[in-house]
Amino acid sequence: MKLSQRAQLCELSPMRKFHPFAVEAKAKGRKIYHLNIGQPDIATPPVYFEAVQHFSQPVLEYAESPGRPNLIHAIQRYYDQIGVHYDEGDILITTGGSEALSILMMCILDPGSEVLVPEPFYPNYNTFIRAAGGVIHPIHTSPEEGYHYADRARIEAEINENTRAIMITNPSNPTGVILTPEERQMLLEIAKEHDLYLISDEVYREFYYSGEGLATLGACAGSDEHLVLIDSVSKRFSACGARIGCLISRNKALMAEAMKFCQARLSVATLDQVAAAALYTVEPEYFETVRREYQRRRDTVMEKLRQIPGVVCEEPQGAFYLMAALPIDDADKFQQWLLTDFEDHGETVMFAPGHSFYATPGKGVNEIRIAYVLKQEDLARAMDLLALGIEAYNKAH
Amino acid sequence: MKLSQRAQLCELSPMRKFHPFAVEAKAKGRKIYHLNIGQPDIATPPVYFEAVQHFSQPVLEYAESPGRPNLIHAIQRYYDQIGVHYDEGDILITTGGSEALSILMMCILDPGSEVLVPEPFYPNYNTFIRAAGGVIHPIHTSPEEGYHYADRARIEAEINENTRAIMITNPSNPTGVILTPEERQMLLEIAKEHDLYLISDEVYREFYYSGEGLATLGACAGSDEHLVLIDSVSKRFSACGARIGCLISRNKALMAEAMKFCQARLSVATLDQVAAAALYTVEPEYFETVRREYQRRRDTVMEKLRQIPGVVCEEPQGAFYLMAALPIDDADKFQQWLLTDFEDHGETVMFAPGHSFYATPGKGVNEIRIAYVLKQEDLARAMDLLALGIEAYNKAH
Repeated sequence: MKLSQRAQLCELSPMRKFHPFAVEAKAKGRKIYHLNIGQPDIATPPVYFEAVQHFSQPVLEYAESPGRPNLIHAIQRYYDQIGVHYDEGDILITTGGSEALSILMMCILDPGSEVLVPEPFYPNYNTFIRAAGGVIHPIHTSPEEGYHYADRARIEAEINENTRAIMITNPSNPTGVILTPEERQMLLEIAKEHDLYLISDEVYREFYYSGEGLATLGACAGSDEHLVLIDSVSKRFSACGARIGCLISRNKALMAEAMKFCQARLSVATLDQVAAAALYTVEPEYFETVRREYQRRRDTVMEKLRQIPGVVCEEPQGAFYLMAALPIDDADKFQQWLLTDFEDHGETVMFAPGHSFYATPGKGVNEIRIAYVLKQEDLARAMDLLALGIEAYNKAH
Repeated sequence: MKLSQRAQLCELSPMRKFHPFAVEAKAKGRKIYHLNIGQPDIATPPVYFEAVQHFSQPVLEYAESPGRPNLIHAIQRYYDQIGVHYDEGDILITTGGSEALSILMMCILDPGSEVLVPEPFYPNYNTFIRAAGGVIHPIHTSPEEGYHYADRARIEAEINENTRAIMITNPSNPTGVILTPEERQMLLEIAKEHDLYLISDEVYREFYYSGEGLATLGACAGSDEHLVLIDSVSKRFSACGARIGCLISRNKALMAEAMKFCQARLSVATLDQVAAAALYTVEPEYFETVRREYQRRRDTVMEKLRQIPGVVCEEPQGAFYLMAALPIDDADKFQQWLLTDFEDHGETVMFAPGHSFYATPGKGVNEIRIAYVLKQEDLARAMDLLALGIEAYNKAH
């Protein structure tokens, strides 16, 4: 029996291949500091669980295919507060930002279509785009330039007749780069000029550590037809397990197509939608507290990184990730070695090797992504382990 | 900007086009009996809500990509009880049976691939198959033959070089047809002989009203490589809003591809998985009670249908749907007229017109699907309204 070509072009999670080595290291009694996953340790606001507990209908029915009106209205109010109004029909609730991406790619890509994405990028973009028959066409960046990609000439040089969209993550996973207002407007201008969709994945919007504060491409003038936002409660409210996201656009033709896929899968989980609406009632202080915590963590990581000779890393401005080039030959080999051959007082560290965040073969080989989602003292220890590891690895190789 | 060809080939829910007329009828004070939707009115077992209330982790984290082990083990025990053992790796938890179908089609279809499906079929199959670039190739049935499709010669005549799978719903939505053990084995033999996947959507497994009782194609000898099951808690436990389903197969190569898509979308909602595992602890009496209730409803509908002159309908053996051919010209026109021009004591009725359950153009035009998900007295009244409607419609046309 045949398997599809698209499935064979997709890959298992690149982080997964180190799982057996991690299991083995743990079996030997090693403690592993995990900088490799984006699961925050921040408590989910209790209103989520309270809303679930107060649900009192005897039948757990399907929700409406576009989403529960109550949740859509909560999201509308959230956007109104940051100065952008969306109509109810501009918002489709999805099973996480993941399903928003999946449905969107189904709507805009045909076999052979290309999506321009600055690399390094969130590796799962590959699967959503491949599933729809498309391919990522990378926009190049470098660690030396702090992974900045918003350069008009560089982007326009990559547009061809197969290009359907430009997709960015702002703030960026994995680099922490945040666009300036001018850069945002410039990207929209490129999209308009070349008749492309501009997809802005803004699930890390609340996680900024400098600059202008809460920002969205939705605030750009003239964005109605071209802009598509991907949003989610996962990171905003540390509610990754809720699987509640949304697809937002004022492009009516696009949203009409997306509705077909929403109807086919019937609905998003009812209780999680009820509870997600409650999340949008948390006070602004919640975000302030979380932001300060992540900023301290970022500062800790950066301080430690700057002390490691040969590391190239600009200070990230947002999200809770950073990419860094290390003075090693190969981050994959280094990661495996850290699990099999290294320990300091019985401890070692995991990160995400960089090459799987790139579409260009050979790029990112000496880079890693660090997710700073641990308590500060654990982060500091993890970074010390990284420094010790680099030194020992380079002596041994 | 372009929209994908696949999206344009998909359709909005066929039930949806009558929504504006229903809204208008309700605005005029009409009461509508809904036989058009498959949302059961049976209470969800309270263990679901209890499990959710007892969840006490402070962070709502991502679940494991293949599903929470606890839920997978509950499903394994359920299958062990019906005499079929699956290993943990044979089961992937999905966001409803819908996502199981979507991921499966992504794994097995390429552009131009065909899936043999007996028509009439669940209309959303169209979208999942179209999304993956494939198309439904129908196996013909007729109301006069009670929509039976399990005929070896008829099925084999439709197999060609593009055929990748045979997909059935057993018990069937929309026809209520249930396969005999011999028919199940025969379908598997066809799949093996022609090297096809055999996909059995068994989400209505508990809803049988005669014959051998709980049955699954998983019990067929030699089904390991070819068989794929689609399952869900939605109908089994009247928990449609949980969006918990699963994809089951012993075909390791297929499940390895499916895992890629599971990893890309990260996980299924955590709380719903916790609660779904609790559903599997309900006692067998729960199913007995529900089954008796649906059987009474089916009997009520059949008794009423037999009294309408010119209706063609065999008694359905399972699920909670039936298809019937009516003595009218066009079920679409008839449905619209029932909403705009008909009432009896201020009441009217809705069903699902038959043609959208077919892939063959022109078929099912005078057929309807009835979902018997209302209380008996409401069902009886709804069927009387249908009889009165047919009479009045035929007089007026």
